[in-house]
Amino acid sequence: MDQHSIFTIGFDADDTLWHCENHFAQAQAKFAAVLEPYSHGHVPLNLLYETETRNMRLYGYGVKGFMLSMIETAVEITEGRIGGADIKRIIELGKAILDQKLEMLPGARDVLEALAPRRLLLVTKGDLLDQEGKIARSGLAELFAGIEIVSEKDASAYRRLLDRHAIAPTQFIMVGNSLRSDIAPVLELGGRGIHVPYAVTPRHEQLEAPPPGVVTAGSIADIPDLVRAFEVAA
Amino acid sequence: MDQHSIFTIGFDADDTLWHCENHFAQAQAKFAAVLEPYSHGHVPLNLLYETETRNMRLYGYGVKGFMLSMIETAVEITEGRIGGADIKRIIELGKAILDQKLEMLPGARDVLEALAPRRLLLVTKGDLLDQEGKIARSGLAELFAGIEIVSEKDASAYRRLLDRHAIAPTQFIMVGNSLRSDIAPVLELGGRGIHVPYAVTPRHEQLEAPPPGVVTAGSIADIPDLVRAFEVAA
Repeated sequence: MDQHSIFTIGFDADDTLWHCENHFAQAQAKFAAVLEPYSHGHVPLNLLYETETRNMRLYGYGVKGFMLSMIETAVEITEGRIGGADIKRIIELGKAILDQKLEMLPGARDVLEALAPRRLLLVTKGDLLDQEGKIARSGLAELFAGIEIVSEKDASAYRRLLDRHAIAPTQFIMVGNSLRSDIAPVLELGGRGIHVPYAVTPRHEQLEAPPPGVVTAGSIADIPDLVRAFEVAA
Repeated sequence: MDQHSIFTIGFDADDTLWHCENHFAQAQAKFAAVLEPYSHGHVPLNLLYETETRNMRLYGYGVKGFMLSMIETAVEITEGRIGGADIKRIIELGKAILDQKLEMLPGARDVLEALAPRRLLLVTKGDLLDQEGKIARSGLAELFAGIEIVSEKDASAYRRLLDRHAIAPTQFIMVGNSLRSDIAPVLELGGRGIHVPYAVTPRHEQLEAPPPGVVTAGSIADIPDLVRAFEVAA
């Protein structure tokens, strides 16, 4: 590592180290299929997004809130005609996400190992038990110096966790698929970001345009080189 | 404080510092009222408890899982005849718990202040965003050296958090209303417990008999004296 700075690297987990959003997208498609008989073939899925957004203040991120918003939207779209058996089907769609077999993104472990001896932090949001379960099933927990499950990834949440680990924001790089929640708040604190786009970005994670100062990786395998480039330039 | 040991004191929050279970109990009563027309006046609420227990592995503790289990139970009890408007009523019961005005237990702040300069930890379980919101609304956050929201209060969770704060279990006293989740696992690690019974104990928090070595407080106001007694005896 010569004379260079050594950065601490934060990693998002869902859609950065393992697949996640594809499970939600599949559940939404099946949700639309459940409702189709009630709505003459057209299911306004934007209403689900509106319900999720409206409920975010009470439910936060995660699968359980998504399930409750699907049920609420189903009642709304069907004007109360939804049958109990179909409510049960919607609950099963959500349980299947919670019970999923974890699918790692290719090369995730190799990349984390290649970054040693740098300190690595895992920073995720969502339901506590669900996130803990996925981290345990990933087998990657022991590669991280800290695991932080937060309710919202904003600048104050990053500031709290960097303080707790005694990391200066200027020595921190956050890696993730969401410009809005993984990258922008860290840049705001004076840190850096490596954006690794995922095939599907949820609407509530989208930003109009990438903020200045962010580096985009073609795949997770590019991250060690990009980190070294940051360190040489620092 | 003379020559005595100084302990770190852990506090449970729900039903120890503020009311919680009464909101669940009220929601259950209203849930039964919603279902009454479907079930000839008899609503088997034990089915709700069975559903909650069965779903605990996927949902963990907290209001959102409780809401999903109420909905699932409603479909079951009504054999699928539950109407959409009643599903919506059940969702509203859960949202009212999440949106509750926090009611502190009398004297909570005084007791915490009386325990200074001892280090205090807050240890809660439930939905992350909900617990964070209640802690913020309580105005008590700044009295604690650490706030720990965990998915399960078992011996390994307490061991992890004591390690993180560099606290020996023998120097730790946990205060809470649940023998099962606040007291027993801490005793198992070699720590001490002060049990402050609450009017309503949820079934999943009940233990057959108090474990040996636990002290029971009549009210939260007794805690400073009980802590001093532990310290003098140590």
